[in-house]
Amino acid sequence: MTDLLLNERELEFQLYEMLDTEALLQRPRYAEHDRGVFDETLRTARTVAAEYFAPHNHKGDAEEPTFDGQRVHLIPETKAAWDAFADAGFLAAHHDAEDGGLQLPEVVLRACTAYFYAANISTVAYSFLTIGAANLVKSFAAPELRERFLPSMLDGRFSGTMALTEPGQGSALGDIRTTARPAGDGTYRVFGQKMFISGGDHELTDNIVHMVLARIEGAPAGVKGISLFLVPKRLVNADGSLGERNDVALAGLLHKLGYRNTTSTVLSFGEKDGAVGYLVGEAHKGLSYMFQMMNEARIGVALGASCLAYQSFIHALDYARERPQGRLLSNKDPLSPQVRIVQHPDVRRMLLQQKAYAEGSLSLCLYASSLVEDAHSAPSETERSNAAELVELLIPMVKSFPSRYGVMASDIGIQVLGGAGYTREYPLEQYYRDNRLNPIHEGTEGIHGIDLLGRKIGQNGGAGYRLFLAKVHATLVEVSADATCAPLAARLGDALGILEQVTAELQDQVRADAALGHANATLYLDVFGRVLVGWLWLRMARIASGALEAGAEGSEADFYRGKLQAARYFMDWELATLEGQARVLREGNSVCFDMRDEWF
Amino acid sequence: MTDLLLNERELEFQLYEMLDTEALLQRPRYAEHDRGVFDETLRTARTVAAEYFAPHNHKGDAEEPTFDGQRVHLIPETKAAWDAFADAGFLAAHHDAEDGGLQLPEVVLRACTAYFYAANISTVAYSFLTIGAANLVKSFAAPELRERFLPSMLDGRFSGTMALTEPGQGSALGDIRTTARPAGDGTYRVFGQKMFISGGDHELTDNIVHMVLARIEGAPAGVKGISLFLVPKRLVNADGSLGERNDVALAGLLHKLGYRNTTSTVLSFGEKDGAVGYLVGEAHKGLSYMFQMMNEARIGVALGASCLAYQSFIHALDYARERPQGRLLSNKDPLSPQVRIVQHPDVRRMLLQQKAYAEGSLSLCLYASSLVEDAHSAPSETERSNAAELVELLIPMVKSFPSRYGVMASDIGIQVLGGAGYTREYPLEQYYRDNRLNPIHEGTEGIHGIDLLGRKIGQNGGAGYRLFLAKVHATLVEVSADATCAPLAARLGDALGILEQVTAELQDQVRADAALGHANATLYLDVFGRVLVGWLWLRMARIASGALEAGAEGSEADFYRGKLQAARYFMDWELATLEGQARVLREGNSVCFDMRDEWF
Repeated sequence: MTDLLLNERELEFQLYEMLDTEALLQRPRYAEHDRGVFDETLRTARTVAAEYFAPHNHKGDAEEPTFDGQRVHLIPETKAAWDAFADAGFLAAHHDAEDGGLQLPEVVLRACTAYFYAANISTVAYSFLTIGAANLVKSFAAPELRERFLPSMLDGRFSGTMALTEPGQGSALGDIRTTARPAGDGTYRVFGQKMFISGGDHELTDNIVHMVLARIEGAPAGVKGISLFLVPKRLVNADGSLGERNDVALAGLLHKLGYRNTTSTVLSFGEKDGAVGYLVGEAHKGLSYMFQMMNEARIGVALGASCLAYQSFIHALDYARERPQGRLLSNKDPLSPQVRIVQHPDVRRMLLQQKAYAEGSLSLCLYASSLVEDAHSAPSETERSNAAELVELLIPMVKSFPSRYGVMASDIGIQVLGGAGYTREYPLEQYYRDNRLNPIHEGTEGIHGIDLLGRKIGQNGGAGYRLFLAKVHATLVEVSADATCAPLAARLGDALGILEQVTAELQDQVRADAALGHANATLYLDVFGRVLVGWLWLRMARIASGALEAGAEGSEADFYRGKLQAARYFMDWELATLEGQARVLREGNSVCFDMRDEWF
Repeated sequence: MTDLLLNERELEFQLYEMLDTEALLQRPRYAEHDRGVFDETLRTARTVAAEYFAPHNHKGDAEEPTFDGQRVHLIPETKAAWDAFADAGFLAAHHDAEDGGLQLPEVVLRACTAYFYAANISTVAYSFLTIGAANLVKSFAAPELRERFLPSMLDGRFSGTMALTEPGQGSALGDIRTTARPAGDGTYRVFGQKMFISGGDHELTDNIVHMVLARIEGAPAGVKGISLFLVPKRLVNADGSLGERNDVALAGLLHKLGYRNTTSTVLSFGEKDGAVGYLVGEAHKGLSYMFQMMNEARIGVALGASCLAYQSFIHALDYARERPQGRLLSNKDPLSPQVRIVQHPDVRRMLLQQKAYAEGSLSLCLYASSLVEDAHSAPSETERSNAAELVELLIPMVKSFPSRYGVMASDIGIQVLGGAGYTREYPLEQYYRDNRLNPIHEGTEGIHGIDLLGRKIGQNGGAGYRLFLAKVHATLVEVSADATCAPLAARLGDALGILEQVTAELQDQVRADAALGHANATLYLDVFGRVLVGWLWLRMARIASGALEAGAEGSEADFYRGKLQAARYFMDWELATLEGQARVLREGNSVCFDMRDEWF
């Protein structure tokens, strides 16, 4: 199975043909590197993922974590994988060299993480959560606190979690009830219960650093009274040595459809005297700190979904190429040999659909990562702020498209295999189960739709939206001279026109009646997402067309022809339904809004 | 959980308002019954399903069957459920009174089976497979063979299976390799391996009667050389007593994504001297016998999918009504109480979508069952043959729409619950897993699409298709005077026009190039399915509108208003994409057809 781990050529295409990742070497932060360093890092990621993560992906699912009332038990391969990831330097790779990091660009590291997601999304979750928690500590914790915890989170001695959700509040963070009481010595005592905390308990590391959202006693209600605390599982002495157990207890493990080797926990803080917690940054600003990390977390979820989609695609393709069954419609001779199922047109349709979703999603996530990178390190202030505007606008689609269409790609993978796809003897059903979480965590489509329509579209006077339109228009102009791509550009041009019109009319609707105007925002999100991914497919098609014109041969030519065909599929098939959906939006359809509870 | 078992009012609506099930009492076969008998049978089904099936639905999934090399172990509740089903007479209910049956109409029994599917689809599979196998024995076996096996299959001593699929052949039945050698005494010795045989081994019954497709030595190749054999697990003496073990061995259990309490087996026939098999009916006609049962099996799969969709809907609704989270968009006061999530417009959209899929699917399956009933027992030959034509035409959609949209309804159910939906602490994730099998068994969409376009549409000079068009046109005329339904009828009228045009053009395409013309048949199947279900929703809307006009009040009025709103949803949202998809079909889009293996 390890030989079916993403596709190096595809990642290379995204990094160096779609994105100009080599140009990053011109930026001062990366001047010490060269392309060889990027490629070597990618190879290391692939090797570690293939050797330490992929082999127990199925086992970690079949033998999920257990809690004996005292300890959590994971299959031992999980610890070996954790160590290999840390030893290869990936926990710290994006940090500056002076902090012990490799000072590598965001987008290169994202491409590295793709291998881990593809190999074993639930084992690698411990590592990625730790990276996220460490980013919060690094960015917002006071120097003393940072010194005490960060080095151990970068070298793999400590792991981390993000403890936001509570049983009674779900996605509505403003209703967080966990409280923090000042202890008088600058620390706090934290009381409350958190739920769905991934990696919330295990014995992979000496300690677990929980980044906890809580409300300081007397704080304002709602989102403006939430603070961020660092609450370790075990206390850490000033010299860095481990102290006693903090008052954080595992109340229980949740049992999930997929992602099974990641513990999902209910954690109790302060069942005794209160859990010792350290305020991170300023009081009442917890949610804004968390939000600064959220875009990256959302790209991470989306990339995970993309990689599971990709794995579903290549495993289905592998099966379809090997499995003989039936004959072509034109052949009525029962004595003739069976054909491989990849030769059946409907199987090709399914594989092409998977390819369009998986590669489109992957491209979207890496593009978004490049924007995050540009927002930090692009040479000019204008480039940095434009990238930041654009990524803010696009995040709802970046999160939602790969999550939604990724599950579809996994679903189609089962269908390609038929009965075999439904059995646990093949990996498809696990990808399907694992992938089903992605449309939920880091914001459902319902939440992102409202965020898009109610906030992002009009943000800063619509600056991000205008940037996006300008970029798509520029591509349309750029490809207009390419006879191969012109028909694709025509389809995308129509789709963009539909999007522009719908957007304008929905903004009017929101102004006229905010509640009704937002009612169909999820559909709008989906429409926008397909136009966005359509744009990326047009760009991929243009590159492919150019490479073929330039004389690409053999497997390279096949690679580019596949890109072109997937782009055609996306334009002809996926954009075909936009107009009808836009009609629903434009008429301000109120059928769902008008439905009443008692009529169900 | 047993209180959330379908909805009696919904079944009543389908049987007595959508369908005129009471009119069946005029037919000689049912003259002895009255409506009270139908209702009592439905109540019995509900009670047995709730008491013996629903309580172990989760347990049968969590503790799936195991094979110790000698015996298959099932949780003991499975046997109690088997017995309760048999004791209530459901194994024989559709048979004539003189054969020990209840002589009940197909459509009433289908409605009864809905309760079992909803309660525990994998435990009841043993019973339904037995009913299918018994139907084959009854219809095609010679009297002596029938006498020896049928009574025990009707009273629950023996169970049955359908053994079609083999490891090397999958859906291509013409490639069956299992062979039958004449033993010289009128019996045969069967050799070969069968795979994905549901209920292929267990100890619920004294014996298992396998209905096996095999090829008599020297038979023609392909589908015309396949015969049907009865191969019991244990031989049965002429006096009905059990003899020794037959040469049928369990090679292994398959481990599935869902439907876990149904054993899925690999069976080896004839590892020693050959399994004793009895030819059923005439040699080489096995596939035609099987096909005569297949429509009913397909309606069964579709009904199972519909019921899982319905369960996903009502569990999501129940959660949405209880779960407080967040506030309405208009309310910025963080101190105000949270609302139940059913009040969020996007949650209502999801629930309405589930309702539209689940009730539309249920309606479709019961309508198809009523056609099967009419084909057998309608008063005139014309009515019987029309019903038979229509059911033949519609079966591809009857199988495919509930399977495809049922999984979507289960998927949406997870989304309504959010993180909770993803955990095994709630039943949604199991419905999702169970339901995922339904788009595969009894024919994938790929197979049904080709069957529809290549065979069914033109069958008997297009008689079935013309009947369908006439029926929809008649409904459009009938509702035109109803101001409430007129806008819905307008949408459906447009959709029907699209379908007619697409159908005509696709038939031209098939004539011009059969392979290319069939390439997009799956999309055509989906388009046809939505028009068909749209028609049923229009009829449901008309009934609801009439009932409201007639003064329905209270919960009855709410029920009908819900029907109207779901119909509006279906017309406005689900039919919105037809036109764009029809364009893909009408242009004879060849993107998927042209894709080559080496380009992937």
